[in-house]
Amino acid sequence: MSVFKIVIIGSGNVAYQLAWHLHNSGHEIIQIVSRHIDAAKWIGNLMEVPSTNRYSEVSLLADIYLLTVKDDAIDEVANQLNLADKVIAHTSGSVGLNALQKASKNYGVFYPLQTLSRNVSVDFSHIPICIDASNSHTAIRLKELAATLTNKIIEADDQKRLAIHVAAVFANNFTNHLFSIAQMLLERNGLSFEILKPLIHETVRKIQNHDPLNVQTGPAIRHDEHTIKKHLDFLKDDHQFAEIYSALTEDIQQWKIGNEA
Amino acid sequence: MSVFKIVIIGSGNVAYQLAWHLHNSGHEIIQIVSRHIDAAKWIGNLMEVPSTNRYSEVSLLADIYLLTVKDDAIDEVANQLNLADKVIAHTSGSVGLNALQKASKNYGVFYPLQTLSRNVSVDFSHIPICIDASNSHTAIRLKELAATLTNKIIEADDQKRLAIHVAAVFANNFTNHLFSIAQMLLERNGLSFEILKPLIHETVRKIQNHDPLNVQTGPAIRHDEHTIKKHLDFLKDDHQFAEIYSALTEDIQQWKIGNEA
Repeated sequence: MSVFKIVIIGSGNVAYQLAWHLHNSGHEIIQIVSRHIDAAKWIGNLMEVPSTNRYSEVSLLADIYLLTVKDDAIDEVANQLNLADKVIAHTSGSVGLNALQKASKNYGVFYPLQTLSRNVSVDFSHIPICIDASNSHTAIRLKELAATLTNKIIEADDQKRLAIHVAAVFANNFTNHLFSIAQMLLERNGLSFEILKPLIHETVRKIQNHDPLNVQTGPAIRHDEHTIKKHLDFLKDDHQFAEIYSALTEDIQQWKIGNEA
Repeated sequence: MSVFKIVIIGSGNVAYQLAWHLHNSGHEIIQIVSRHIDAAKWIGNLMEVPSTNRYSEVSLLADIYLLTVKDDAIDEVANQLNLADKVIAHTSGSVGLNALQKASKNYGVFYPLQTLSRNVSVDFSHIPICIDASNSHTAIRLKELAATLTNKIIEADDQKRLAIHVAAVFANNFTNHLFSIAQMLLERNGLSFEILKPLIHETVRKIQNHDPLNVQTGPAIRHDEHTIKKHLDFLKDDHQFAEIYSALTEDIQQWKIGNEA
């Protein structure tokens, strides 16, 4: 296994999870860099590594620099780095590869396809990591690094990575929000969200072996307009929920029509 | 354990799954009744039980009649039955208790909170069953029946049951459709839906121990407007997807504001 010296730039959930898992995989995290120095120190202390909030103090002794700052800040931070031929990669699903071209000639993308929270531990070995790079030297290094965390490495250019990111928003962020809406509807009526968990598990279990399109159930796909009307009436004081209900119901019905045609 | 003689009215996914699981739990299914006689015969043959498509031929020898027809048909079918004091229950999440009052004086609701497909077997012991009834005699019978399938019995009146049904549509039907959208976005770009499955599993794993509201991630909750714009631009030729994206993003952001206020 290749062992790399790594600088982590950023101090959010992705910084923390990557630093921690790379540290545990045997790499040497040599510095945490972040404007939020308290957060940087907190991560640094976990693995006895120095931290700084000054980009002028970024160590030049690392092999790989992972830029985990918010998408909006990538440009600004990249422009403050001058790493010559060090390998640098951002971890964003939606920012273009070329965003880092001012920081080094060996730049790339190292995008873990997972939802990372500070307080929820994850098993990185199940997480696909999407790789892109400005040249093959960089691609090889980033793949070597990714291979120490997972065996699911996906080569994805900007367009593919954006498709993955949008798909992930639908499958994770929006799904999770639908769970929040369901919980609110239940709790308002004196019911616990717990009662829905077997249904949610079954929903996910089914797609292990079936395309979701082929196992769709419910009033929308049955064109049960009477029930749909009753549901919208139930949501009449929740304008935004009713709008989500209608948009998803219409889309389900259009796909069905498409399939039948 | 109480053993009941049961007539199943209907021949769809709910009829099949209930008939099969009740049969396997030791109850005696004595008849399958459905306008779709081929489907009724298919279910009946599985457990060597006669079937009919005539409501005038419904056996009067059962203890419990389960009406699993489509919501829209419940009224019509109930009006053709005259079961005196036999226990009858429909299995709908959204149809009122009183829909069956012409069929018997002992009527109720027996609503399994699960997504039931013909070809996907389920473990009924994890499925909550929602019960309502016109009187305590009926409630007791229906709970006895439910208890042979599951230990999760929920007493729910019309309003609560409707809340559960709407919540289930959000948590299951709409979630499954978001998976379909994600799959389409990936496959169009030469990528496999498989790469999203670890993310989907993590999404559901997280809510075992956290409220979904507290583990929300992604561009919407971060108010990352630049990424949101990029995603909407990616979806510019998919009007309906863009509408779903916007409605869910706005709702996530409104909740966040609500929490901060």
